[in-house]
Amino acid sequence: MHRFVLVVLFVLMSLVLGTAQTGPAQALGGYADEAARVERDWEAKFQAIPTPENLREYTRRLSARPHHVGSPYDKDNAEWLLAKFKEWGLDAHIETFEVLFPTPKERLVELVEPTKFVAKLQEPTVAVDPTSSQHDEQLPTYNAYSADGDVTAPLVYVNYGVPEDYEKLERLGVSVKGAIVIARYGESWRGIKPKVAAEHGALGCLIYSDPRDDGYFEGEVFPQGAWRPPDGVQRGSVMDMVIHPGDPLTPAVGATKDAKRLALSEAQVFTKIPTLPISYGDAQPLLAALKGPVAPEPWRGALPITYRIGPGPAKVHLKVRANWDLKTIYNVIVRIPGAVYPDEWIVRGNHHDAWVSGAQDPDSAMAAELEEARALAELLRQGWKPKRTIIYCAWDGEEEGLLGSTEWAETHAAELRAHAVAYINSDANGRGYFHAGGSHTLEKFINSVARDITDPEKKIPVWKRSQLARIARAEAPEEREEARTRPDLRIGALGSGSDYTVFLDHLGVATLNLGYGGEDGGGIYHSIYDDFYWYTHFSDTDFVYGRTLAQTIGTAVMRLADAELLPFDFTNFADTVRKYAQELSKLLKAKQDEIRERNRQIEEGVFAATADPKETSVPPTVEEVPPHLNFAPLENAVEALARGAEHYQTAWQKAHENGGAALGRASFRAVNAKLIESERRLTSPDGLPGRPWFKHQIYAPGAYTGYGVKTIPGVREAIEQKKWQEAEAQVGRVAHILTDEAALIESAASELEKLL
Amino acid sequence: MHRFVLVVLFVLMSLVLGTAQTGPAQALGGYADEAARVERDWEAKFQAIPTPENLREYTRRLSARPHHVGSPYDKDNAEWLLAKFKEWGLDAHIETFEVLFPTPKERLVELVEPTKFVAKLQEPTVAVDPTSSQHDEQLPTYNAYSADGDVTAPLVYVNYGVPEDYEKLERLGVSVKGAIVIARYGESWRGIKPKVAAEHGALGCLIYSDPRDDGYFEGEVFPQGAWRPPDGVQRGSVMDMVIHPGDPLTPAVGATKDAKRLALSEAQVFTKIPTLPISYGDAQPLLAALKGPVAPEPWRGALPITYRIGPGPAKVHLKVRANWDLKTIYNVIVRIPGAVYPDEWIVRGNHHDAWVSGAQDPDSAMAAELEEARALAELLRQGWKPKRTIIYCAWDGEEEGLLGSTEWAETHAAELRAHAVAYINSDANGRGYFHAGGSHTLEKFINSVARDITDPEKKIPVWKRSQLARIARAEAPEEREEARTRPDLRIGALGSGSDYTVFLDHLGVATLNLGYGGEDGGGIYHSIYDDFYWYTHFSDTDFVYGRTLAQTIGTAVMRLADAELLPFDFTNFADTVRKYAQELSKLLKAKQDEIRERNRQIEEGVFAATADPKETSVPPTVEEVPPHLNFAPLENAVEALARGAEHYQTAWQKAHENGGAALGRASFRAVNAKLIESERRLTSPDGLPGRPWFKHQIYAPGAYTGYGVKTIPGVREAIEQKKWQEAEAQVGRVAHILTDEAALIESAASELEKLL
Repeated sequence: MHRFVLVVLFVLMSLVLGTAQTGPAQALGGYADEAARVERDWEAKFQAIPTPENLREYTRRLSARPHHVGSPYDKDNAEWLLAKFKEWGLDAHIETFEVLFPTPKERLVELVEPTKFVAKLQEPTVAVDPTSSQHDEQLPTYNAYSADGDVTAPLVYVNYGVPEDYEKLERLGVSVKGAIVIARYGESWRGIKPKVAAEHGALGCLIYSDPRDDGYFEGEVFPQGAWRPPDGVQRGSVMDMVIHPGDPLTPAVGATKDAKRLALSEAQVFTKIPTLPISYGDAQPLLAALKGPVAPEPWRGALPITYRIGPGPAKVHLKVRANWDLKTIYNVIVRIPGAVYPDEWIVRGNHHDAWVSGAQDPDSAMAAELEEARALAELLRQGWKPKRTIIYCAWDGEEEGLLGSTEWAETHAAELRAHAVAYINSDANGRGYFHAGGSHTLEKFINSVARDITDPEKKIPVWKRSQLARIARAEAPEEREEARTRPDLRIGALGSGSDYTVFLDHLGVATLNLGYGGEDGGGIYHSIYDDFYWYTHFSDTDFVYGRTLAQTIGTAVMRLADAELLPFDFTNFADTVRKYAQELSKLLKAKQDEIRERNRQIEEGVFAATADPKETSVPPTVEEVPPHLNFAPLENAVEALARGAEHYQTAWQKAHENGGAALGRASFRAVNAKLIESERRLTSPDGLPGRPWFKHQIYAPGAYTGYGVKTIPGVREAIEQKKWQEAEAQVGRVAHILTDEAALIESAASELEKLL
Repeated sequence: MHRFVLVVLFVLMSLVLGTAQTGPAQALGGYADEAARVERDWEAKFQAIPTPENLREYTRRLSARPHHVGSPYDKDNAEWLLAKFKEWGLDAHIETFEVLFPTPKERLVELVEPTKFVAKLQEPTVAVDPTSSQHDEQLPTYNAYSADGDVTAPLVYVNYGVPEDYEKLERLGVSVKGAIVIARYGESWRGIKPKVAAEHGALGCLIYSDPRDDGYFEGEVFPQGAWRPPDGVQRGSVMDMVIHPGDPLTPAVGATKDAKRLALSEAQVFTKIPTLPISYGDAQPLLAALKGPVAPEPWRGALPITYRIGPGPAKVHLKVRANWDLKTIYNVIVRIPGAVYPDEWIVRGNHHDAWVSGAQDPDSAMAAELEEARALAELLRQGWKPKRTIIYCAWDGEEEGLLGSTEWAETHAAELRAHAVAYINSDANGRGYFHAGGSHTLEKFINSVARDITDPEKKIPVWKRSQLARIARAEAPEEREEARTRPDLRIGALGSGSDYTVFLDHLGVATLNLGYGGEDGGGIYHSIYDDFYWYTHFSDTDFVYGRTLAQTIGTAVMRLADAELLPFDFTNFADTVRKYAQELSKLLKAKQDEIRERNRQIEEGVFAATADPKETSVPPTVEEVPPHLNFAPLENAVEALARGAEHYQTAWQKAHENGGAALGRASFRAVNAKLIESERRLTSPDGLPGRPWFKHQIYAPGAYTGYGVKTIPGVREAIEQKKWQEAEAQVGRVAHILTDEAALIESAASELEKLL
């Protein structure tokens, strides 16, 4: 019982004393007390090694020149990283893949009616910012994997361009059929915007950064401040990653030199219509030339114009043409062999490629990963022997579509399925609060790590600071109460948008995605101004949060690598899945209530009575109320899961009794194997409806959100898309998976009990 | 019982049939069936008379030249109105008062640091708009009753300048002491802004119109659209009307020629600091020159700048000097003597003065009032004989501080207390929905009128359209349910901002304020562009809602004037007062919870942990949790009120049995006297704490909202201002008043029963 008691005590004491209790005397989950003492000593040594000065120097070096896929400096960085790892005595190599990466050949956006205007499509040099002038090496502003095209059509403003925006357009009597849409960045992953636009018949898509979202509305613009200047553009991939990420020509297999490739025409993930990102400087004349209905209030941005929807009279000519070439990507892979369980792998990754200079994204976090590796190498020299194998990865080609991680993991899928205990990811870092997302079987574990890391600004555990921030920001009293009393802070579920995707969603490897941030904002994402000058003026300027990230993730890696019994927990997982299941019933009920109410209002004449005769409005039509669905199988599975989790928890507590004496005696290889298997068991070989690459049945990026997660996605998206039969079928499928999971957990518990 | 049953039946039938049931066969509250038939015939004749053509012509005439207090055309309009009334055979006269009305002598706003900029302070001519060029006669842009002053000081942006904004400034470590504040129009009555600024030590106050609130953010600007152009300015009074409205030199007495006047230095209602309104064209350079913290998100407007708070480095020179002269105001008063109860008066008013051309404010509604008078005169010629005296008033000097209505009502206070049954006000009109506010004893009555008036756009009763709009806009299911099932639509309580104030708040005359609007917006309020061109392009362009307003109010006036038993009801009033009383307990509880929670967070270290060290922030301090208050006297009084209301309701229903035979037999003078008294009984001779002019204990404009109402203001404002002892004392006082009211209602019920 002792870990649980300790956690409760800890929480009570932190509430009473206002500080967290940490120190070498504390027990560690999965460790006998003596082993915990040893582990904590090593962790303390580890945490003392990373320095802000190194992080600054790495970030400077990595971001000194544009280093996108295919650029000389991308390869140069990979080779430099390799050299560093080797210099520190680590076993490292570069693994290459050949991927499709289109780069711009022609780009044109011009207003042809009612007046003429040609968009600049160029981010200018900023005098004080030395790397902003490296135009020869910078990728032009564009959206990778946009279809080629040359279209001239009336313009329609579609707000964020998500499905609900098109519902609103329908109410306003506006169609995008045959039009070019202009959407603003935000609310969804960018690739969703041209996808939904094309589904509604649009011929082209412009995506712009409104100053409301990351420009002067938020703060002073670069270089006076951190925010997006008028000509700043967000580059980015518009590959349809919710079908599959990675190389478009080699879905589900590694893009090795000799891999069998699809023809360009067979690839599934390009946009259907030409798409280009523009700055708000370029967007303003286009938007100002629109007439038609005034945009609904939530659609209006911060440009000094009346936002109107169109269509037209603004007519736009959009031309996009790319070089559809294969490029080589360079993943740098480091292996630290395990001393006791070499076939159990802890995988850690961050990408090293950027859209341009990428000081924040990804170099700020890549530098932390590098510093972790240096510190681990130092510990190895001092005699530390991790029980498990540790694999450090610096991915290439993340920005384009998670290319490096996906191709590597697809290539090594069988090994990873057999050996990977967990994957820990980071992507970019900043100043502020600890953020964690991932598998809820690791929620308790990452909470334990966060309790042991000190916040550099506040000198309190980062866990405590996060807890206090949750108390401060809670919107409802229940939320605040939970932040105060739940032993663990909840971690978010993962959608997509970084290199963890293939590990979690395709292979079923328990995953964490970690980082710091929230105190500084900025508008340089994917622009040339995400560079060393910006980062050292407006973000983690003294790199202390870089050090904290290295301390956090390095500690997590070590603690996973050294535990006798892997610190997986199922009570928080079961609690979370129960919450998701309840959300599904609520979602269905909300849909039923909404449609029932709308039908009633149609019958009452509400829409007819409130339509302004001076404006066009299309009243909604009566719709069938969604049927009740049988959630019982899911509810039963959730109960089984909770029972299994309780059972395992009891055994786990027993293992830690008497100073964890049992943990020092037996080998837990068989139990650990079941724990590792627990995430695999949440996948289904067939994957999700319509997108078989995504195999995880609890977490997935939303088909219409992109980055945003959909939990229990098979059921949730079927309900959202009003596919009632499919929803019920998916309930059965998920219930089956969760029942299997419960059985696995029960057997892990029994196995564990046998060893005590 | 029949009226109640009819109402329920009506609601049920409208729900079933989707249309309202109206027609001459329907009964009328306070009328025997036969009398109701006669009344309905007269009302039908009345409603047929007003024409849009007349309304257009009146509006054109009234708004043809600037007609503020003291201008030649103000007097000219009064004389024209008088001539019209007389032409129609009505007994009319002009009643003048001598009031203090300062007009600008010097106005200067200049940025003196870090760069130079002199504000234009001038609204330019718009070529297509003929009256916009009448600069010689237009009042310059200014705030009347601002203190004179000449100050140079750093600038601070204070959002809307309401008390909560200053709490936020305190958290941000910003003081306005010794500064000039710039506040945007909105959220409070404008006079609150310099008042609160001065209380916090500011030296001057600028008030500007942000394009977010009524400029391009909302729609195309004038003359392309209805919204405020860059140089448009909102004039307006900043007199501290929550102390008392009317002439500053003659509080509580009529400003007749020989009235005893205060010295200028004794007047209580001028601002303490110089105050001037400016356009967003003039505001932008000032706001753009501010540094300091970035304004919190809800503070940011729609100018293309980063909104910062200061103080400085922007330094502003503000100079305001006025001619502090007495001016003559001209109220036009019409009297139609009552045939049966000449000493019971129905008073109807609208102002005729404007800040400049005033086509919307007030001429659109003044025109309706004029057309009502013409129609009533026509009925009189046809033989209609109203039972009660009807007094039609066209007020002067409303814009400056409700001067005309206040001075007239103060002059005739004794008569009005003795005779006034009700006062019905309007002020401006537009296209859309019926809006009503006022005494809840008239809620049922005005609902009955609204059921009988047809919406010109939808050809359904305006009542039905309002109900459907409430269903559409309801934010909570309970609100929607109430809109569907409550027999009457709730009317709002009145704060201040128009001529009803003296009648309701000072004299305790049951009051209604009525109008149409909500379909068109605009940004011409109190600017030179509120003129005939604007109104006929962007508002009720064909004057059909002007006709509807005349039909509505004329019907209300006639129905009140002709009823045998006055249609006052106390069940809705008691229901409303119960709601207010419950709000007070909730308000106290919310304050307690808020302070308790904040104290807890201070102790937990939430503010310390979440303060960004790169920004200044002043944590809140521990505050005593508000005590529990004894609401029992109020709750008991509410019960007594409800019992009295039920009793009266039973008697009322009985009076209407058998076709209201009793109503045709007896004289109800004694009952009516008690009904008239019922609103007086809600006043207290001492008035509200700190503002004795305001005598009503249920409704008052908020001391820190201005226009916005505070219900049960003595208690509510004491709680808001954390004066706990005063709050409890006020509970007792209001309970006493309501207990008296309940006794009066009981006695009215007994009196009525005696007559049946």
